[in-house]
Amino acid sequence: MLEKIDHIGVAVRDLESAVARYTVITGHPPERFEEVAEQKVRVAMFSVGESRIELLQATSPDSPIAKFIDKRGEGMHHVCFKVSDLKAALARLASEGMEILPGAGGVGADGSRVAFLRPKSGNGVLIELVERT
Amino acid sequence: MLEKIDHIGVAVRDLESAVARYTVITGHPPERFEEVAEQKVRVAMFSVGESRIELLQATSPDSPIAKFIDKRGEGMHHVCFKVSDLKAALARLASEGMEILPGAGGVGADGSRVAFLRPKSGNGVLIELVERT
Repeated sequence: MLEKIDHIGVAVRDLESAVARYTVITGHPPERFEEVAEQKVRVAMFSVGESRIELLQATSPDSPIAKFIDKRGEGMHHVCFKVSDLKAALARLASEGMEILPGAGGVGADGSRVAFLRPKSGNGVLIELVERT
Repeated sequence: MLEKIDHIGVAVRDLESAVARYTVITGHPPERFEEVAEQKVRVAMFSVGESRIELLQATSPDSPIAKFIDKRGEGMHHVCFKVSDLKAALARLASEGMEILPGAGGVGADGSRVAFLRPKSGNGVLIELVERT
């Protein structure tokens, strides 16, 4: 069961100018910056209600975000839903024919566990699931 | 100020099969179906936390959703944020250089007022604002 939209991920070319823009849109500066080495991205996070907007800039040309922008330009990259039990959620989704990308269930730097569904399982939407511990 | 993510809009080719898929993903059937004549779409709405997922299928080849799918395929179409005062929000955004699409502030069938920002104002994200009355 999905508890909430944890965040939406937006692929941007230049984090500083995108942060300036989303500071205007949201009406407040980002709560946090982070570098996620394994995804080769720098991230700026803006709280909106119970969710966040995450702006993602590639730190390397072989980052998934760089490849996305090369192909489609800047824009919405993924949506992440919070679940209470990632393992149970993945088992349920797989049993119903949803395709889960390799590497699912890995523990991130902050102790959360994440997984991605193949975009065709989400009608073209890249869906991330996160269990926060 | 943005109160929350009101909904994310997903462009789909076939509403019935997409509803079946998102019933699996969310773990529950849609709360509501709606046809929005002026946007030429049929919509299925799934609650997730304080937000919704809206699946959008075109009812005509000249619907914005049909044009989006022709160009980019199925996927995330827009994100909508709830504001308490649309007029004030638009005045603030325009004064900061954000571009608002024509027709902003119109009253929808349910009495809510909506507006869209030009995607380049959102780093490629089509941003909708809604004031619910």
